[in-house]
Amino acid sequence: MDDPTQAAPSQRPGDASVDPTVTLHVCVNCLAGADRDTSPRPGARLHQALLEAQQQQDQPPRVRIVAAECLSNCNRGCSAALSGAGRWSYVYGDLTEAAAAELLAGAGQYAATDDGLVPWRERPTIFRKGVIARIPPPPQPA
Amino acid sequence: MDDPTQAAPSQRPGDASVDPTVTLHVCVNCLAGADRDTSPRPGARLHQALLEAQQQQDQPPRVRIVAAECLSNCNRGCSAALSGAGRWSYVYGDLTEAAAAELLAGAGQYAATDDGLVPWRERPTIFRKGVIARIPPPPQPA
Repeated sequence: MDDPTQAAPSQRPGDASVDPTVTLHVCVNCLAGADRDTSPRPGARLHQALLEAQQQQDQPPRVRIVAAECLSNCNRGCSAALSGAGRWSYVYGDLTEAAAAELLAGAGQYAATDDGLVPWRERPTIFRKGVIARIPPPPQPA
Repeated sequence: MDDPTQAAPSQRPGDASVDPTVTLHVCVNCLAGADRDTSPRPGARLHQALLEAQQQQDQPPRVRIVAAECLSNCNRGCSAALSGAGRWSYVYGDLTEAAAAELLAGAGQYAATDDGLVPWRERPTIFRKGVIARIPPPPQPA
């Protein structure tokens, strides 16, 4: 399990030029079990709901919402992925447009970390139940 | 599906300083269904088999094999992830130490690309059948 007590030490380079903005990729092709002719697709609806939720925020966004083609998680779509310089990357599944606000809030928590590791108990339920996989940041140069 | 005909355009910055070495993270804690007391664990055995396979190569390695704690893919372990600067990242599951040579060869194909997108037909079977998820590279600065 992705156990917070085993959180790896931060591997973020101590480089002030590192981009503080994180990316939330959303598969806009995802059907999430719907008929192929469904339009707009559930993934596209989730993407649109995220953009609208972000527009309602007061603060400048630290989360870049980006449409993606396929995150290879078709069996558990809709899918989204969080990534950022020096951070662990995460892929989430079982998402719907109804979860847009919660997803955006979780992305904001992620952006507020240096290494992408939000404490387990503070993560939104959709992250705890819907995590598909995660990838460590690249090792720091020796 | 991760359809090669829909491959996104390369998003790699045209920066010669980008690290050409890719990283293959391997979860060394993975039990892959084995008893918790199993030692060494299947994930650790896979990691060791990869190191040994790499030692038998003639050419300087372009794949950095790195032990990781958990890739949050416990239901389909053993797990490994490929990542590299400017490239799509991939998480693979259902791996065993018997697949070490094939996994390392696939990682070499990945390293030889600019964007991480190896044509579908050229991918090892373990990659085609065992892909868990993938994450696009960060968008290029505007």
